Amino acid sequence: MNAFRQAGLSLGRLPPGPRGTITDVPGVRVGHRTIVRGSGEGTIRTGVTAILPPGDPYAEMLPAGAFVLHGHGKAVGLWQLLHLGTLETPILLTNTLAVFRCADALITWTLSRHPEARSINPVVLECNDGFLSAIESRPVLEADALAALEEAGEEVREGCVGAGTGMVAFELKSGIGTASRLVDGWTVGALALPNMGRREDLRFLGRALDLSRVPPLRKGEQGSVIIILATDAPLLPEQLSRLCRRGALGLARTGAPASPGSGDFLLAFSTGYRIPREAEKLAGEFIPDRSETMGALYRAAAEATEEAVLSALLAAKTTEGRGGRIVPALPPSLITS
Amino acid sequence: MNAFRQAGLSLGRLPPGPRGTITDVPGVRVGHRTIVRGSGEGTIRTGVTAILPPGDPYAEMLPAGAFVLHGHGKAVGLWQLLHLGTLETPILLTNTLAVFRCADALITWTLSRHPEARSINPVVLECNDGFLSAIESRPVLEADALAALEEAGEEVREGCVGAGTGMVAFELKSGIGTASRLVDGWTVGALALPNMGRREDLRFLGRALDLSRVPPLRKGEQGSVIIILATDAPLLPEQLSRLCRRGALGLARTGAPASPGSGDFLLAFSTGYRIPREAEKLAGEFIPDRSETMGALYRAAAEATEEAVLSALLAAKTTEGRGGRIVPALPPSLITS
Amino acid sequence: MNAFRQAGLSLGRLPPGPRGTITDVPGVRVGHRTIVRGSGEGTIRTGVTAILPPGDPYAEMLPAGAFVLHGHGKAVGLWQLLHLGTLETPILLTNTLAVFRCADALITWTLSRHPEARSINPVVLECNDGFLSAIESRPVLEADALAALEEAGEEVREGCVGAGTGMVAFELKSGIGTASRLVDGWTVGALALPNMGRREDLRFLGRALDLSRVPPLRKGEQGSVIIILATDAPLLPEQLSRLCRRGALGLARTGAPASPGSGDFLLAFSTGYRIPREAEKLAGEFIPDRSETMGALYRAAAEATEEAVLSALLAAKTTEGRGGRIVPALPPSLITS
Amino acid sequence: MNAFRQAGLSLGRLPPGPRGTITDVPGVRVGHRTIVRGSGEGTIRTGVTAILPPGDPYAEMLPAGAFVLHGHGKAVGLWQLLHLGTLETPILLTNTLAVFRCADALITWTLSRHPEARSINPVVLECNDGFLSAIESRPVLEADALAALEEAGEEVREGCVGAGTGMVAFELKSGIGTASRLVDGWTVGALALPNMGRREDLRFLGRALDLSRVPPLRKGEQGSVIIILATDAPLLPEQLSRLCRRGALGLARTGAPASPGSGDFLLAFSTGYRIPREAEKLAGEFIPDRSETMGALYRAAAEATEEAVLSALLAAKTTEGRGGRIVPALPPSLITS
Repeated sequence: MNAFRQAGLSLGRLPPGPRGTITDVPGVRVGHRTIVRGSGEGTIRTGVTAILPPGDPYAEMLPAGAFVLHGHGKAVGLWQLLHLGTLETPILLTNTLAVFRCADALITWTLSRHPEARSINPVVLECNDGFLSAIESRPVLEADALAALEEAGEEVREGCVGAGTGMVAFELKSGIGTASRLVDGWTVGALALPNMGRREDLRFLGRALDLSRVPPLRKGEQGSVIIILATDAPLLPEQLSRLCRRGALGLARTGAPASPGSGDFLLAFSTGYRIPREAEKLAGEFIPDRSETMGALYRAAAEATEEAVLSALLAAKTTEGRGGRIVPALPPSLITS
Repeated sequence: MNAFRQAGLSLGRLPPGPRGTITDVPGVRVGHRTIVRGSGEGTIRTGVTAILPPGDPYAEMLPAGAFVLHGHGKAVGLWQLLHLGTLETPILLTNTLAVFRCADALITWTLSRHPEARSINPVVLECNDGFLSAIESRPVLEADALAALEEAGEEVREGCVGAGTGMVAFELKSGIGTASRLVDGWTVGALALPNMGRREDLRFLGRALDLSRVPPLRKGEQGSVIIILATDAPLLPEQLSRLCRRGALGLARTGAPASPGSGDFLLAFSTGYRIPREAEKLAGEFIPDRSETMGALYRAAAEATEEAVLSALLAAKTTEGRGGRIVPALPPSLITS
Repeated sequence: MNAFRQAGLSLGRLPPGPRGTITDVPGVRVGHRTIVRGSGEGTIRTGVTAILPPGDPYAEMLPAGAFVLHGHGKAVGLWQLLHLGTLETPILLTNTLAVFRCADALITWTLSRHPEARSINPVVLECNDGFLSAIESRPVLEADALAALEEAGEEVREGCVGAGTGMVAFELKSGIGTASRLVDGWTVGALALPNMGRREDLRFLGRALDLSRVPPLRKGEQGSVIIILATDAPLLPEQLSRLCRRGALGLARTGAPASPGSGDFLLAFSTGYRIPREAEKLAGEFIPDRSETMGALYRAAAEATEEAVLSALLAAKTTEGRGGRIVPALPPSLITS
Repeated sequence: MNAFRQAGLSLGRLPPGPRGTITDVPGVRVGHRTIVRGSGEGTIRTGVTAILPPGDPYAEMLPAGAFVLHGHGKAVGLWQLLHLGTLETPILLTNTLAVFRCADALITWTLSRHPEARSINPVVLECNDGFLSAIESRPVLEADALAALEEAGEEVREGCVGAGTGMVAFELKSGIGTASRLVDGWTVGALALPNMGRREDLRFLGRALDLSRVPPLRKGEQGSVIIILATDAPLLPEQLSRLCRRGALGLARTGAPASPGSGDFLLAFSTGYRIPREAEKLAGEFIPDRSETMGALYRAAAEATEEAVLSALLAAKTTEGRGGRIVPALPPSLITS
């Protein structure tokens, strides 16, 4: 189970899946490459996280959608994803200045499987870990991205791993968080990379926490957050974009402020059907917008997103980074009180 | 056939349907209510045009999309149409200040068929006929809108009828125009309400026309244009919105400038499948985005739109309106030369 | 002060304005026309609420923006408002089937002040009060809309007045709510019309309330919510649209679910500068996106929206409506506990 | 002058600037890195084109906007550009699989000037030159992107240079094209990278050309086109996005089909004012949307775009590429006839 459930907490009305992670959606895998090295101003606390859809997404694309709450971010691949409604590569998360090397690595990865490919739309999203890591030294290389893809499995490690290594949210150490919900036979999973907010913003299960004993950080408000949603429900691309909007509701409930320098991107894909690259017909059975099921899926996206963000805080450990900066973990005592 | 084909003209690579009108899409009907009366500054040259999809759209909604090239317009109903991808009433076209009475009339019309309805999303679009008509006297009443709906049939009258009665485009008399294309067993139809452009803008089949002998109008550039597309191809809502974007290409080819005061709205619906109001499942066979067929449908939308605009000019007659203003028809001799 | 402050409650980090209402923004006025009559299935519980910007908005337009969280709604006027970034009439709120008569009334209102007007873009938003009111009998007439405009003043009545008369949110009686925030010398005000959510959704200051003693309603999930934001900060239209997105964060924090049938529309206007209709130059001093001030204004919008929704619940009274349906007010004892 | 004017042609109603290129906008520079090598299936015909705004865009950002006609493309940087309305790096154009290396090169370029930068939003757009070039061998390196930036000057070479080296449009050799217009004391410049359309689509100054003697290509319809607009008029970001929409009108008039596999991206920036990175106030004088000037600027964008596309065709030379494929230049005799 995720860190949130391991802490004995619950949230919302819908039950979690068996693992309580995004990989409760059958076939979805997650991998991390964590890069921790150096000292002083050259300290590196960064990495890459890979989310792999099942199957061969280049040959058989998956329906996908997105919602951008605030666009101060460097997301790669969303125009084609939104205009065609398709995902054709794994998704990588990394730091702000490493986005393009990771995108280039997805080209390498895809060409190694599809040498005939002439057009590839990699999807990479990012948060800025420059508070803890010497981001300007550009430590992430193609090999790191390929390692995260290679490592991927059904077990999702949370906290200070992969792209989560250098994350800070609400002036607390953050990282990777994940959660899932079951609804009407379908699963909705979320993976969060929260890097936003001041301490006063935090709403933990609706409550402000007394952080007066935790030393404050002198970090500016310029944070971001990435949410990846996956579901096996056979949703159309526009419906997946709407699912992302409900993820944003869950995000808001944690206190995420969507500040002026924030890149708040939400992306969703469905494993419920495939779009073969050369098809001339596409048949399927879909879920109507006004149905009860759709309302329940929306609710699942909001709940899973809120929980994934909180789970990232619970899983992260106090971390020392560049220039001796120390970012404290959320004191467990504050939660259980 | 439409006025364009009756003039012996052709355009593009795809064949027109048997009528050369939007009603080549099976089940689509068009009706007009023309209001011509008064004299001097009180002269009225206005009306209402109704486009009816087949069946009972409130019980079984049709997939629909839209594209707004420039939004200086008072379109009603497009938010819900775009967010849910559905059309649930007929479409009315009228003048700028009559939009809301026509929308209210669509509520009357729907309630008379569905007394149980509690939420109705009427769709009405408009152009401004204030150059020829005392628009501020608000001559259009609910009965006029209902009459246009009542009158609807498969034969589409073009030119100075219905909402086209007071239209002016390229400083020439305009009105209603229509066209259609056949593609891979499907039909795409267009209905145009062009009310935009200065004479120098006009590109008739790509050519500037020598309008030096036609008296210029002192009308400002503030025009608009509405395009309605219909097809029996089973397109998804997002695909219908993309079809509208190709209608905008056809519009551009006539010289439409999308000037700062222009409301250039394009709306498309499909009769290829229905979305029952209370359905919990929706099955269907769709056309993939990257297919050859989709490219051909896009082409059909561009061609039909361009032709519909030109047909409106060819069908319109020289008209005298408010304050004795005379708007000349396009001299046929300029086309045949 | 608004009902929320009168109850001794507070929320967020920013101080409210002197009235705690949207009219803390200088020159903004609010009026209501409440329609309560009939009995049995014919019971009417509806009305119109008018928000008037200062000055003559048709002659000197105000910058405006919007955000649509979910678009199952019949909002009028938002295309032009979004494409040109301008508001040129007062804003009316009413029930779903009365939107177009209210829009038509705004044409009457504007023509009476500007007989030369030939193009008018009224702005009307709605929620559905059909649970308590015989909405299908269409009780709102032009005179009602004009009365709400006429009545407008600086004091804002909350609860079961105007468009709020028939509102239901979280299975509790809702209505009109309002709030304000002061930030860096500017004021941000919010007016809410909440009509969404099941009882389990409610998060009152982050907490679920124990509503087990309040009888549940058999109302479906199909609700909506409208938020109007006003500020005297000189924001550009796109910035006002972004302000609306932060309003949506506040909305989310109340538990608003953005269900499939919901029309969740947020609109913002600034009184900080004017756009004369015929201007050829526009000079001004604006607030950069990445500034501290902008972050504070965003925060103000989120806080004021959350408070306005809660204030609507606190101000509303238990109401009996069509068919004897009784919608209970939020028991005050649940808040103070 | 550009190739179009050198051929003695003219288009539209507005005069070109002194050079007839995008660099008529003061301070704008363009550079190319052309990569031509190899033979047989390994033939390389590709490159990078750089468009540099005046000044130091990272320190003082420029207002910018964009419009995506069809989004099957890998554009980098447009989310932040659209959400904040700012351009903070030069713009690079290249082939589809080289986008991310070029974006990474812009990080290198910016860090070398601003070592303190922790967040950089590079802007790169692309077309696919895989018909003539072994795109999958990924021949573009960081040094190539930096060379294009280094080489930039006021003289704009057109045709088979830089990103234009491997372009094919309307089954004819294409490349880089450029044009400009003067309007009310302002300049609007366009740079085009056309790679779209079948031969039947081409409308050269409104006319179909008789290409029957030119051997057809077996290239699929999957093309794209990039348009970069620059102006010294002080437009707001949203106005620049609208300017791009008028560029799309010009594009449509060349016959560009916006086919299903097309990435049709238009980007515009203004040199008319700057947005200092740390500013807390922003003062300026702007051009109102409804002004005559704005209409003229829209017209300039449409005319310059159409001319830039045609100029690309006129400047390009017959080219042999991968596997001995020969793409013929537009025969000059077809134009002068």
